[in-house]
Amino acid sequence: MSQIANFMSDNAAAACPAVMAAVAAAAPAQPAGYDGDDWSGRLEAVFGDMFARPCAVLPVSTGTAANALALACLVPPWGAVACHSEAHIHVDECGAPEFFTGGAKLLLCPGDNGKLTPTSIDAGLASHRGDVHQVQMAALSITQATECGTVYRPAEVAALAAHARAQGWRLHMDGARFANAAAFLACPPADLVADMDVLSFGCIKNGGMSAEAIVLFDLGLADQLRWRRKRAGQMPSKGRFNAAQILAMVTDGVWLRNAAAANAGAQRLASAASDRLLYPVEANEVFVQLAPGEPERLRAQGFLFYDWGAAGSNEARLVVSWDTPPDAVERLAAALAAG
Amino acid sequence: MSQIANFMSDNAAAACPAVMAAVAAAAPAQPAGYDGDDWSGRLEAVFGDMFARPCAVLPVSTGTAANALALACLVPPWGAVACHSEAHIHVDECGAPEFFTGGAKLLLCPGDNGKLTPTSIDAGLASHRGDVHQVQMAALSITQATECGTVYRPAEVAALAAHARAQGWRLHMDGARFANAAAFLACPPADLVADMDVLSFGCIKNGGMSAEAIVLFDLGLADQLRWRRKRAGQMPSKGRFNAAQILAMVTDGVWLRNAAAANAGAQRLASAASDRLLYPVEANEVFVQLAPGEPERLRAQGFLFYDWGAAGSNEARLVVSWDTPPDAVERLAAALAAG
Amino acid sequence: MSQIANFMSDNAAAACPAVMAAVAAAAPAQPAGYDGDDWSGRLEAVFGDMFARPCAVLPVSTGTAANALALACLVPPWGAVACHSEAHIHVDECGAPEFFTGGAKLLLCPGDNGKLTPTSIDAGLASHRGDVHQVQMAALSITQATECGTVYRPAEVAALAAHARAQGWRLHMDGARFANAAAFLACPPADLVADMDVLSFGCIKNGGMSAEAIVLFDLGLADQLRWRRKRAGQMPSKGRFNAAQILAMVTDGVWLRNAAAANAGAQRLASAASDRLLYPVEANEVFVQLAPGEPERLRAQGFLFYDWGAAGSNEARLVVSWDTPPDAVERLAAALAAG
Amino acid sequence: MSQIANFMSDNAAAACPAVMAAVAAAAPAQPAGYDGDDWSGRLEAVFGDMFARPCAVLPVSTGTAANALALACLVPPWGAVACHSEAHIHVDECGAPEFFTGGAKLLLCPGDNGKLTPTSIDAGLASHRGDVHQVQMAALSITQATECGTVYRPAEVAALAAHARAQGWRLHMDGARFANAAAFLACPPADLVADMDVLSFGCIKNGGMSAEAIVLFDLGLADQLRWRRKRAGQMPSKGRFNAAQILAMVTDGVWLRNAAAANAGAQRLASAASDRLLYPVEANEVFVQLAPGEPERLRAQGFLFYDWGAAGSNEARLVVSWDTPPDAVERLAAALAAG
Repeated sequence: MSQIANFMSDNAAAACPAVMAAVAAAAPAQPAGYDGDDWSGRLEAVFGDMFARPCAVLPVSTGTAANALALACLVPPWGAVACHSEAHIHVDECGAPEFFTGGAKLLLCPGDNGKLTPTSIDAGLASHRGDVHQVQMAALSITQATECGTVYRPAEVAALAAHARAQGWRLHMDGARFANAAAFLACPPADLVADMDVLSFGCIKNGGMSAEAIVLFDLGLADQLRWRRKRAGQMPSKGRFNAAQILAMVTDGVWLRNAAAANAGAQRLASAASDRLLYPVEANEVFVQLAPGEPERLRAQGFLFYDWGAAGSNEARLVVSWDTPPDAVERLAAALAAG
Repeated sequence: MSQIANFMSDNAAAACPAVMAAVAAAAPAQPAGYDGDDWSGRLEAVFGDMFARPCAVLPVSTGTAANALALACLVPPWGAVACHSEAHIHVDECGAPEFFTGGAKLLLCPGDNGKLTPTSIDAGLASHRGDVHQVQMAALSITQATECGTVYRPAEVAALAAHARAQGWRLHMDGARFANAAAFLACPPADLVADMDVLSFGCIKNGGMSAEAIVLFDLGLADQLRWRRKRAGQMPSKGRFNAAQILAMVTDGVWLRNAAAANAGAQRLASAASDRLLYPVEANEVFVQLAPGEPERLRAQGFLFYDWGAAGSNEARLVVSWDTPPDAVERLAAALAAG
Repeated sequence: MSQIANFMSDNAAAACPAVMAAVAAAAPAQPAGYDGDDWSGRLEAVFGDMFARPCAVLPVSTGTAANALALACLVPPWGAVACHSEAHIHVDECGAPEFFTGGAKLLLCPGDNGKLTPTSIDAGLASHRGDVHQVQMAALSITQATECGTVYRPAEVAALAAHARAQGWRLHMDGARFANAAAFLACPPADLVADMDVLSFGCIKNGGMSAEAIVLFDLGLADQLRWRRKRAGQMPSKGRFNAAQILAMVTDGVWLRNAAAANAGAQRLASAASDRLLYPVEANEVFVQLAPGEPERLRAQGFLFYDWGAAGSNEARLVVSWDTPPDAVERLAAALAAG
Repeated sequence: MSQIANFMSDNAAAACPAVMAAVAAAAPAQPAGYDGDDWSGRLEAVFGDMFARPCAVLPVSTGTAANALALACLVPPWGAVACHSEAHIHVDECGAPEFFTGGAKLLLCPGDNGKLTPTSIDAGLASHRGDVHQVQMAALSITQATECGTVYRPAEVAALAAHARAQGWRLHMDGARFANAAAFLACPPADLVADMDVLSFGCIKNGGMSAEAIVLFDLGLADQLRWRRKRAGQMPSKGRFNAAQILAMVTDGVWLRNAAAANAGAQRLASAASDRLLYPVEANEVFVQLAPGEPERLRAQGFLFYDWGAAGSNEARLVVSWDTPPDAVERLAAALAAG
């Protein structure tokens, strides 16, 4: 019988030791509840250092909450958000952005390899007039790394930001896999978020436990976000546990090491299937065109993964997590190389 | 200099060892994310046993989320919820019920000691006509233990439920301190929730870390709640950490022992101030009429607590947590006895 | 058999000749739809003259829409509106303010004769702390004439406005019966709206047909209101019919004459029941304490009206419309005088 | 100088004599306000006869309100509506469906000539999984006549309805130009709405003034719609004026005669440009490919119309209204024939 090797999702990965240790350290009673603890109090300085500019940092319990709360701060109920047609906020959040914004619309744009460009945004919005009968374009949301496992280069983000700013739009980055992008680019994190108003900083997929961070670079939105977070049921009474997890991730480079490990596994798989990749492999996801019968063969060997694309297309998504055993990666690489 | 003794809030208490151990045990990678883990899979059976009837159990990250999601399942946007004028859902949730329900109204009712009665509800709704120009009464929400630290007896709950059912209302119980009520009454938990449609089962104040449970006794609402929870950003990708916490609380009586410890501390304080209690002490909160100057004297001795009531009223709220050191309780009791 | 005389509501009154003529004149085809017609184009100048300051004027189809859209421009979803506990926005709009604002709360304040005062507002908000756990006070809404048929004097409005401004609140006036107040006070209309941000200018009860006007004195809100109005389904494709009605009302003093006629009838009734009025009679509504059996006797004589207050209280609300036949008023006055 | 001939929109057309007469007849005072008048009381019987089955009929002030309220009754906040990518509810209602539904999503489907088919719907929804991470498909909305001026045949509607029912979806028809479709098909109106749950029955574009009708064939939704309508500010206090307009339209075939006149004008234009029509002409809209320079020449001759399609495409939309003068149509036909 085959040994199970799970490439389904980084959502099933372990929480990493640094995070677990931080949670344990936060267990004792504290002087104050909510965000009144020391961990919560350190978040802004730590992230301010990391991103080299002042920011407000508010933990929430899921990436969906981070994205939807962020967008609600940027877009009025009659507003619109341009995003990729495969964006998580459109495809996988059960309407959370529409709920939190009070009914704003997502306007879908195309883009190769999961990436938007100024040109693809213009194409997506070509028929949008913007008169009073229509929602008003108010923000651009991009995903870093993208839903296709690719990574925007800083110059690409800058071009998008310039395009957005020229039209008065606000900027949101869904960074559910921001660490994977940062590890791939190996540039200062600040270079990745230049011009952003808000970043959803993902931890959970990358070895975190139960906390993500909303990082607000427009400090003028901080009060609004605090009230929105509270009424969204996202202001926990023992906020220290969330803050401690997030601090553990960004201290001593844990987040980048975890992400680099996952990325390396993805590169190993990519090298074994380099002639049949659906997209460039730049983060921890590998999308590969399998041959007829190959999905079944791989599963029979114990490899778990999701089908991708249309039914019967034999496309597969392979996700490597920070803790995926290297030998599991090697076995899958070998199996892929064998075709 | 005085030793600090914190009676401000059970929100600053420690997370208890059983919960921390369960979280640690959930750290390793699992076969599936979201609610697909073993811990999540056990919740319904465990709560079904505890409450002696089938139920659906969905963890969320805060009590506010639990209450607001629960109400959203019970009340349409044009609906109304009758609740006590001091109910947490009205006073302390920044409009979460209005947000999650799509704009339903809370109709406030009076009631001694924080408790509603059929008569007090009728009084609160006396001017509510219910024609098409008004929101439609749809649910009753009660808090157990109440915001005044009192506990509804099963017969009182039954009378309220009968009153509500006779008018076609649904029933919600905000159980942020449900454990304290259960420990006080020492009756089977099932007796406390007879006739309820939904219970917000609190863990965090009682030694939990970051998870509360929505317990649905009307199983017909389960699908709706799953979708609402997801779009509220309350469906965590590593749901096992929430489920594990909740299971730890309700296994081997941890929840009742923790609550009993807190309740006992409150009783000790109550006995020391028995002639100046604002409400009967039945859970872990003690509301006491202090003398002029007494708040300052107590604080000078290191006791931390919130003022209560109107400014200058010298009323105080003293909250005992599951982990409040007995000697801190004794010192405060002595100070109170000394006047 | 008795002749029917209807004192139930000004909502059942006739539409006045000036309004009907204006509607007929707007029937022919126009160069442009929506608000692109000449009538719509004249609204701002006409109201600007009337109120002696620049304003934006947007017609809507009901007073509820006017109030709810106005409040949505003034209050964020996490905001609160202070209003009288008998305010129409709380009692009779089926949650429209909560719906349009995205879940803001109305905080209810007491006040004799349907009127708020700075003191009564402070009393109503005494327990409101305003920290992050609570909705944020953002606006004051007052009704002119009030739900009790009384009229705020300009100095009273100024005192309320000063109180609100000192706390950073915005100001809304529900003027469903604004004309009755203006006719009663016989002062320049501008004196009635000093310091207001938005006025719901009522026409329908006063001889209009199907249009009310939102008058925005804070022009910075105009774009927002246009988008909100459109997405609320309140931007009619043949907007000229609404604009024409409103212009007809405020041209040549029609609105004040209609209101004066209604007010005069109410005064006649008041004089006949001067010793048993529940509130001062200052507009077109008379609230009177009837004797046991008197409601039945009056109805047997053909007088139609609503009971008021608690069941069995024998309180009655008598509404005089702009077109109530004087002889009907006289007959009712006589019946009241007869006890 | 050229005589102006306006083909921009039926929203600028006249209100027809029958409607204006009905409004005038409704001017006098009535026994009751809101929907308590005789006109409102007759709506259901008249529409029930017309559609040969029981229905509830609630007037509203705009087509946007009709559509958005209808959808809100059919779709939960976590639901989705399949519609054509050019549907008015998506393109021209400033997010009203998202607002009224509490944040549901519109999922866009392709379709030639503005028409959906079962196949095009499947294509549009191909990537929609429907698991808990996504909104739940709940309704299909089709437009009759379509945004491209085409008309669904009864068999086409039946096929769509069967496709929808098989998947448990509710059915909405946006009938802003329903009369034009009915006049074109010349079949019993009942045949056009078989299987629909709700119809937005348009009047205003077809010679109405300020009222549209929501026709509910699922009577179980009527209470919900009444409450939703009230809180949307769409329940007018003098409801008789709306009901009277609608009754006037559907009495003595006014609606079909008006629509037939507009359709005939469109056919005349179509015959003059038969070789360059963008879509079949089946209602009162003609979409035509003009030659370079032709838009300018036509406008110089006094013809007013909107450009269509992409900038510089020289596509034009020509709308004929019920009251467009035949000689204006003839002149435009001649100009088009001249190229």
